[in-house]
Amino acid sequence: MSEDEREPTVRDVSDWWSTSVSRIEPNVIELRGRPVQDLIGSATFAGVIWLMLRGEAPTPGQERLLEAALVSSVDHGPHAPSIAVARMAATCGIGLNNAVATGVNLLGDVHGGAGEQCMALLAEVHAGDAETVVAAWRARSKYLPGFGHRFHTIDPRRDPLLGLVERAVSDGVVRGDHLRAAQAVERVLAADRTRGVPINIDGCTAVVYAELGFPPPLARGLFVLSRSVGILAHAWEETGQGRRNKGPMPPSILPTYTGNP
Amino acid sequence: MSEDEREPTVRDVSDWWSTSVSRIEPNVIELRGRPVQDLIGSATFAGVIWLMLRGEAPTPGQERLLEAALVSSVDHGPHAPSIAVARMAATCGIGLNNAVATGVNLLGDVHGGAGEQCMALLAEVHAGDAETVVAAWRARSKYLPGFGHRFHTIDPRRDPLLGLVERAVSDGVVRGDHLRAAQAVERVLAADRTRGVPINIDGCTAVVYAELGFPPPLARGLFVLSRSVGILAHAWEETGQGRRNKGPMPPSILPTYTGNP
Amino acid sequence: MSEDEREPTVRDVSDWWSTSVSRIEPNVIELRGRPVQDLIGSATFAGVIWLMLRGEAPTPGQERLLEAALVSSVDHGPHAPSIAVARMAATCGIGLNNAVATGVNLLGDVHGGAGEQCMALLAEVHAGDAETVVAAWRARSKYLPGFGHRFHTIDPRRDPLLGLVERAVSDGVVRGDHLRAAQAVERVLAADRTRGVPINIDGCTAVVYAELGFPPPLARGLFVLSRSVGILAHAWEETGQGRRNKGPMPPSILPTYTGNP
Amino acid sequence: MSEDEREPTVRDVSDWWSTSVSRIEPNVIELRGRPVQDLIGSATFAGVIWLMLRGEAPTPGQERLLEAALVSSVDHGPHAPSIAVARMAATCGIGLNNAVATGVNLLGDVHGGAGEQCMALLAEVHAGDAETVVAAWRARSKYLPGFGHRFHTIDPRRDPLLGLVERAVSDGVVRGDHLRAAQAVERVLAADRTRGVPINIDGCTAVVYAELGFPPPLARGLFVLSRSVGILAHAWEETGQGRRNKGPMPPSILPTYTGNP
Repeated sequence: MSEDEREPTVRDVSDWWSTSVSRIEPNVIELRGRPVQDLIGSATFAGVIWLMLRGEAPTPGQERLLEAALVSSVDHGPHAPSIAVARMAATCGIGLNNAVATGVNLLGDVHGGAGEQCMALLAEVHAGDAETVVAAWRARSKYLPGFGHRFHTIDPRRDPLLGLVERAVSDGVVRGDHLRAAQAVERVLAADRTRGVPINIDGCTAVVYAELGFPPPLARGLFVLSRSVGILAHAWEETGQGRRNKGPMPPSILPTYTGNP
Repeated sequence: MSEDEREPTVRDVSDWWSTSVSRIEPNVIELRGRPVQDLIGSATFAGVIWLMLRGEAPTPGQERLLEAALVSSVDHGPHAPSIAVARMAATCGIGLNNAVATGVNLLGDVHGGAGEQCMALLAEVHAGDAETVVAAWRARSKYLPGFGHRFHTIDPRRDPLLGLVERAVSDGVVRGDHLRAAQAVERVLAADRTRGVPINIDGCTAVVYAELGFPPPLARGLFVLSRSVGILAHAWEETGQGRRNKGPMPPSILPTYTGNP
Repeated sequence: MSEDEREPTVRDVSDWWSTSVSRIEPNVIELRGRPVQDLIGSATFAGVIWLMLRGEAPTPGQERLLEAALVSSVDHGPHAPSIAVARMAATCGIGLNNAVATGVNLLGDVHGGAGEQCMALLAEVHAGDAETVVAAWRARSKYLPGFGHRFHTIDPRRDPLLGLVERAVSDGVVRGDHLRAAQAVERVLAADRTRGVPINIDGCTAVVYAELGFPPPLARGLFVLSRSVGILAHAWEETGQGRRNKGPMPPSILPTYTGNP
Repeated sequence: MSEDEREPTVRDVSDWWSTSVSRIEPNVIELRGRPVQDLIGSATFAGVIWLMLRGEAPTPGQERLLEAALVSSVDHGPHAPSIAVARMAATCGIGLNNAVATGVNLLGDVHGGAGEQCMALLAEVHAGDAETVVAAWRARSKYLPGFGHRFHTIDPRRDPLLGLVERAVSDGVVRGDHLRAAQAVERVLAADRTRGVPINIDGCTAVVYAELGFPPPLARGLFVLSRSVGILAHAWEETGQGRRNKGPMPPSILPTYTGNP
């Protein structure tokens, strides 16, 4: 700190915590400039998610697409690490909020980041040539974010989600650039292998979020909100089963020891 | 482990992770018995939250009340520790999901548990006498969960939320027992002091969740889903401001040292 | 806020963050009043843990006991939920610190709180009669914190830890009240069953921490520091194995579905 | 899954959780092949940290350096986001372990990753030319990991830590390659500016950990273990102050609202 640094003031502290998200004063709560009492009873939860992240309310068509994407990702069972750890956490004597936080903490670059990465891929394809872009991504990693699944050959969420985007293009709600980019990638991948590598749920939601104009990092953010529902439902179910300190397998099964004797 | 313990089988491992929340098999995703493809495009996000936690879909009237409660709690500004820590986390080089998890982790008994505790209070009042119950709770703690606020004398969310519950009682959606219990507590508190101690947001949402039949711990669970929206919006805003390792105050302000010289 | 509330000052903010733990000013770092440069190279890590939590440095005898307790709890393999979730977290594309935090988050009342609860039990036994106290605790819960293990009939850490406490009693380092209380509980439990319920690791470390004068909640705090080592070692090993999104069991094993068809 | 995939066996589940870190069987606890009872009372906590991460015990000289590095990073006051969030967490009604986890979760690429990044820098400098390497890193980012501090012009931990490394070089404990690389970077930076940009604590510990042969990600891992001590001490102090829902500033100071009116 230089010696001429001025004495800090309260204003500095207020500014340090400045925000445009909400205005909270005694008896006043405004979300993005809207009094909360005007939203309660009229706005949907999905609509308020849009409002909070974008700064203004969605149109009905935009809201419908967002609802569909949020609905599609809520759960993928206890195989998903985020779900499994939340169930284990719920047996360890911590709050339900701590169990949910434990699950959300795992939605990182690998578990929760594919949508974000796929949005970057789609933007490149939109701006260039699908075959070239796919080849470049493939050279960097064997995983192409948003395409292929170790479990589903055809993800049951694909057709309804992409169908909704197609209808939204017809209705003029979105332009369809990213939908077409995703379809172009699918065609490149289908030519590449005997069995295609279809777009997966991360790819489908990436199309929706890109069409709706969300910046890529919010694909992960929205996935967090969606998957939190499944994490909560599983943690809550586990709570009711009364186990204590649930490990990954029954206590009678021992891990294989691979170290020095 | 006793020596006669039978050899564990794969079935044990499958059972160890048994669940009634979802069925995930190759090309099959069912949430509470419903194929996910039947929900995408028809169910709302709030409706699926209900489905996942309760096992069946809500009626339109139930869903409307749930939407309102979820909307009402999304944010209370950077004064709330959950919001502040998520903003700080977002400047430390961790994922957006980790920043949200950090915020959610703080929604414990004190920050996120008032609704759960208030539901217990309302159940007691419903089963007994408001004055006696309030006196007993007051004897245990000076905080009465769901009533009073250090900031708002009249919480702007009170009237719209309770108004929706009243309408739902008229429409036969809910019975109104917990609404009347909350009003009885308000009357006891009003008689008790020169200025009343009105029901706060935790109390209002506790009324909603109790009327809708949610078990008390899910009041915290639903608050987690709601507040996650504000946590995400604030963490995302902070990301855009480019600070690194944001502390609670500008670096030029030093904490007071109270220890040995 | 009342209208006459005075304008907040910077002093308030400094005071809001006041601490006696450390003094940090430009070119000054003091831990509990000691310049950090005087500790580097002379104090042990365990000694500084004591200093930071207690405000002054330990005697050599105290430090030796603390080292032993910290050493004893570092790991209990992947069956422990804290270890398993950290390993899963390490495969999800989050930082090593996030993986450790995920594990630590699970060391709650059930997984990490037994030592804290056992210290309360030992204090009661010390002040009263072992048989009566044990009966009272048993009436409240079938688990007696610090005694019995679902896995070990004789915990290999018991004898060396209690032996060190006994030697410290002989050397006048500690008084032995809590050691005797634990032994009294063991005798009560031995009389109670055909096979005894010996003190477990949480009980042994509770004896150490109680003898050393730590308040009960720090039994959990010290366990957190100790187990963090195992959590880190396991998360780091998992990182080297290259799995992605590791679930609790191989992908080919499906959870049993117990819900509606 | 291909159709010919063989039926999974229990062995698969055991293998899925295989580890070389520890062997835990009924009445057996071995850490890296050593019975835990042989470590209790003879190994130091720092020595066991080394054992768990490296697979074998350190020499006394190695252990002394590790102790010094672990001691040096335990705390940097409430300005550090990791400390501040843990203090706030401790007022929200969650466990002490959850408060520590909250702090550790923030030790990410920016807050806890500088040591890891500095080790990569030092390796490059060791293999090449300091001036060229520094120029290349500077071209990518204005922050050079491990050098400079927004607070300290001379970090009081620098001289004692580097002095210990120098002595360890003399004693043949370590080679000194990374110490010389760090000194070369300091010389380049000193020539570059009127006031030098001295090595900071992350740089000093990076030198220690690199000299000791730790892989770069463990610089962050070891920092996590060290800073957990300060996080715990601060969370515990805050617990004793009795605040509830502590925000980043007193409730009377309002954040500046910068959004739409």
